[in-house]
Amino acid sequence: MRSAPEIVLTAGDPLGIGPEIVVKALTDPAVRAVCRPSAVGSREVLCAAARMLGINDFSEKYGDNIIDVPLPAGSTRDVNELRSLAGTVRAFAGQHAFDCIVRAHELCSSGKAKAVATAPVNKESLRAAGVPYIGHTEIFGALTGVKDPLTMFETDGLRIFFLTRHVSLRQACDLVTEDRIIDYLRRSAEALRKTGVRADEDHPIAVAGLNPHSGEHGLFGNEETEIIVPAVLKARGEGIPAAGPVSADSVFHLAHRGRFAAVLSLYHDQGHIAAKTLDFERTISITHGLPYLRTSVDHGTAFDIAWQGRAGAVSMSEAAILAAKYAF
Amino acid sequence: MRSAPEIVLTAGDPLGIGPEIVVKALTDPAVRAVCRPSAVGSREVLCAAARMLGINDFSEKYGDNIIDVPLPAGSTRDVNELRSLAGTVRAFAGQHAFDCIVRAHELCSSGKAKAVATAPVNKESLRAAGVPYIGHTEIFGALTGVKDPLTMFETDGLRIFFLTRHVSLRQACDLVTEDRIIDYLRRSAEALRKTGVRADEDHPIAVAGLNPHSGEHGLFGNEETEIIVPAVLKARGEGIPAAGPVSADSVFHLAHRGRFAAVLSLYHDQGHIAAKTLDFERTISITHGLPYLRTSVDHGTAFDIAWQGRAGAVSMSEAAILAAKYAF
Repeated sequence: MRSAPEIVLTAGDPLGIGPEIVVKALTDPAVRAVCRPSAVGSREVLCAAARMLGINDFSEKYGDNIIDVPLPAGSTRDVNELRSLAGTVRAFAGQHAFDCIVRAHELCSSGKAKAVATAPVNKESLRAAGVPYIGHTEIFGALTGVKDPLTMFETDGLRIFFLTRHVSLRQACDLVTEDRIIDYLRRSAEALRKTGVRADEDHPIAVAGLNPHSGEHGLFGNEETEIIVPAVLKARGEGIPAAGPVSADSVFHLAHRGRFAAVLSLYHDQGHIAAKTLDFERTISITHGLPYLRTSVDHGTAFDIAWQGRAGAVSMSEAAILAAKYAF
Repeated sequence: MRSAPEIVLTAGDPLGIGPEIVVKALTDPAVRAVCRPSAVGSREVLCAAARMLGINDFSEKYGDNIIDVPLPAGSTRDVNELRSLAGTVRAFAGQHAFDCIVRAHELCSSGKAKAVATAPVNKESLRAAGVPYIGHTEIFGALTGVKDPLTMFETDGLRIFFLTRHVSLRQACDLVTEDRIIDYLRRSAEALRKTGVRADEDHPIAVAGLNPHSGEHGLFGNEETEIIVPAVLKARGEGIPAAGPVSADSVFHLAHRGRFAAVLSLYHDQGHIAAKTLDFERTISITHGLPYLRTSVDHGTAFDIAWQGRAGAVSMSEAAILAAKYAF
């Protein structure tokens, strides 16, 4: 049995719900059962979040599990003043969130940590701080020199890759090409292999259909017969365990039941609807293709409820647990 | 309290799983708790299905709940011979399935029954029998003179209407027009009103977004700003409790939690993925707009396991329960 991996949890934007959900996940027995978690963030901020949550022995009990990243020079060190800014866009907060990510990257790159689970950052705060990246994936891509990291969703064992994401539905249709499907099947198979997920003939990666009932033999749409079938055949010719197209209205259900190792979703909402309707809070985003594994909650900074002690940490705990599960 | 409604269950194709699942649903205490169910089918066939299932007192106990529709003249009356044909396409089977639907229609039209729940028919058997309609919805439409019945899915309280269904995804994009959305919102609101489902300002019908994150303010796709928003505003101007667009990756989750009375799905898979990933077997199709209510299982005749006693009747029972719930 391998020893429990070191997982670092970045605290995200200090004016959002990040610090409180990271404290909750760090102290969650379900998380501690599968890894040795550390929080990457301001010690003062994390201890203040713990006090708000009524965890009074946090510093004594978990102090060694904090990797302190001080707030930027010039920003307030007064925790009460900081809390009064909760839920607002601030340059210092964006800078601090960025600093935490850089520190987590250093720890993972040097082998001191095995994987990173990230709490949410705020795009506007990052921009206010002059950070030249719009979000986590771009930051990690830049830090590691990886151009096109591969996102996978996991919800209750249902794994989903995405051929396209943040483009219009019409453009997503245009991006369903044979070459792109083969490329994503290759990368998905490699990501599963690297993280120890079995994918084989009996348990292949299924490509979802684009049209209802996969077009019903060309009756409504011919992308399946003209693009997806040839792509799957070529991928199989390369030894990739691919299958499909499988109608979108059953492929996720079948994958959830264990029939498929993963699903290649052709457009954003296809996979998002399946994952989030199945279990909204336990939908975790996993970034493959980096030199280390990164997982993430799939919600934002929730400025409206930040620093009120109301934020649920189910997602953050799940992100830490999946980071431990797939760390390599 | 109104008395339990009379619900008729059509036995569907006699060579498929229809007879056995109708027998199971008819004898299901959960069904009998909410309605007075009757099976519309061949008495001989239904009793044979019951015997196969080990329900030996079926005829004595439930005989009065059978509305006998004899098999067509000239077809076999030998039950063993009939069972040997299980899973095959036969004209007499298609004709019988059609006859059962006509009988159920007569009972509902004359007020002798309140609603109908249908077991599956086989399109090829209908065609072999010379029935000039491809499926249930077309048959009920023709029998009642209703041109465009409105389909709704219900899964564990999540209700979904469909702006488009059996067209390609590209064509579905083209069919997202202001007029069509308003028309479907009107008809959806009327269907909910007629079946006693509360829909109001606090509990509106949500129109799903077409693009990821509803286009994120036009960043990827402008159907939301140019078509859906104006349609929702006009519908609201008519007093229809409409809302949206709401991003497709959260609208079904929110509706399932009770935030929305129903969701208007813009394309087939949007709503199908949500319903079927949530609970594949309890996804029931409800046909609104007819003079009476019709519900249906959302699976086929399952020829591969017909007359083996293995078919699950969860869907058929749920279809009967929803027919009772919404009968008017």
